[in-house]
Amino acid sequence: MSAPTILFAAKPDRWPTYEPHLRRALAAAGISDANLTTQADPSDVDYIVYAPNSEVQDFTPYTKLKAVLNLWAGVENVTGNATLTAPLARMVDTGLTDGMVEWCVGHTLRHHLGMDTHIHGQDGIWRNGSVPPLARNRPVTVLGLGALGEAVAQALHGLGFPVSGWSRSPKSIANVTTHHGEEGLQAALSRAEIVILLLPDTPATENILNAKTLAALPEGAVLINPGRGPLIDDDALLAALDSGQIGHATLDVFRQEPLPEAHPFWAHPKITVTPHIASETRPETASETVAENIRRGEAGEPFLHLVDRNLGY
Amino acid sequence: MSAPTILFAAKPDRWPTYEPHLRRALAAAGISDANLTTQADPSDVDYIVYAPNSEVQDFTPYTKLKAVLNLWAGVENVTGNATLTAPLARMVDTGLTDGMVEWCVGHTLRHHLGMDTHIHGQDGIWRNGSVPPLARNRPVTVLGLGALGEAVAQALHGLGFPVSGWSRSPKSIANVTTHHGEEGLQAALSRAEIVILLLPDTPATENILNAKTLAALPEGAVLINPGRGPLIDDDALLAALDSGQIGHATLDVFRQEPLPEAHPFWAHPKITVTPHIASETRPETASETVAENIRRGEAGEPFLHLVDRNLGY
Repeated sequence: MSAPTILFAAKPDRWPTYEPHLRRALAAAGISDANLTTQADPSDVDYIVYAPNSEVQDFTPYTKLKAVLNLWAGVENVTGNATLTAPLARMVDTGLTDGMVEWCVGHTLRHHLGMDTHIHGQDGIWRNGSVPPLARNRPVTVLGLGALGEAVAQALHGLGFPVSGWSRSPKSIANVTTHHGEEGLQAALSRAEIVILLLPDTPATENILNAKTLAALPEGAVLINPGRGPLIDDDALLAALDSGQIGHATLDVFRQEPLPEAHPFWAHPKITVTPHIASETRPETASETVAENIRRGEAGEPFLHLVDRNLGY
Repeated sequence: MSAPTILFAAKPDRWPTYEPHLRRALAAAGISDANLTTQADPSDVDYIVYAPNSEVQDFTPYTKLKAVLNLWAGVENVTGNATLTAPLARMVDTGLTDGMVEWCVGHTLRHHLGMDTHIHGQDGIWRNGSVPPLARNRPVTVLGLGALGEAVAQALHGLGFPVSGWSRSPKSIANVTTHHGEEGLQAALSRAEIVILLLPDTPATENILNAKTLAALPEGAVLINPGRGPLIDDDALLAALDSGQIGHATLDVFRQEPLPEAHPFWAHPKITVTPHIASETRPETASETVAENIRRGEAGEPFLHLVDRNLGY
């Protein structure tokens, strides 16, 4: 068996960040003879370590490709690519998961505690009128129960929040009241004072939060979206914020990124825009996921985290 | 045995909040015949359910007093009262503890994630330059390992933070690297990027964070003080913030409360003042602690949470 050729296809500035971690992880997986490179004759390439914003968009010349190993958790910019016929693996990265848990728990607690009142209110006025309820009395719902959603739900449970979850198909998860399907969405939303969106971006999830589903929430509920921009109908959200139906929205992802300076989200007093920083793939841990899948490919074992092209995730 | 007389001595607005919970908890503890009141002949009173800011400051007329059951976690305004010779119990309230955990974890994550940059930065500029390290790479130190400090330390450990702790006397706590005594303080502070103060206010802890101990922290460390105001030397803190030695301080407690409008903390760009809201005694759960101690007193069993007058906590 000859050494595999592994093309690293991402923005050029990612290469120095990833190269040492990938080489270390490949060596640890017993593939130290791999040809890991950013330049290769397409017909020689066995694996592509892939960022969807790389220059590689036409996979046709990669005639012996064994797999595309995505560096991002989201694959919505890849699944529709008809030139890709090789297996496609999502990134499942413990570093990305941990970072997402920290961001989601942090912003949940920020809204739960009403921190912004004090962060903005450094004006000499002693606003000690109200102490928030305890977490045990603050129901939170997580939409999406993949690796990220489940980890976030467990962390919130650990802090005492009553946690509900919703997914397309039925799931059973310890400590979480789960709902599924279209009819389950209403139940998942009906008591949620804080909603966290961690769904994939697919045709079935686009605008899942719209005028109707936003109206199903208790008045004044808070939205936190570190998932994908198209999950929310932007105009319906703005209307629900203006009516008071939604109390606040903290949004990390948008239909267009960077969010244009003129977009009404920036100036809205009940929206916090964060610049797609909730979490990112961490080279150290992500390289281990990539190396493990290459080891599996070379050993003839099934790949981990394969995308179902029909479901889109 | 005659029914005990229990005097509720707190600000008048607390009585309607506490009365139903105390009556319920006393009944559940088998003391439904108690005379629970806000007005009693002092010589008839068996127990005082006590807030240190109540009108009762001279305990001399309470000649048959069996115990004073404090409603607050802090007892520094009571331990020096020479007229009190009956046993004094601190409040240990699961609701207060849970609320404190939520506030401390929330503000730790706020600083860990650099949230303020985005909460303040809703100006159309997409500031996505940096993703914070993971919690596993952010050492946090908790000063004070009583019921509150230990609970906060465990919650932070659960989120992945490496947690160190410091207490006056040696303690061994799972998942926490513990230090003690004057010589241990330097070690506890030397790696702490975030420091949480949950010490009691005693002569031994006054100004425990001063010019010397602040200098022991890594440059740019963040302080979070939901403990007691006198733990920090205010002038030393202002100097350390101005020099950059301390990156930010979120302060919930002060030597004078409400913090005077003219105090430099309010206007300092690296200080967040919160108005003593980190946590408070919760009537529902605190009433159970009170009722259990009255049950113990009536049954001749030792009281829980007794204050050591020599240590002051």
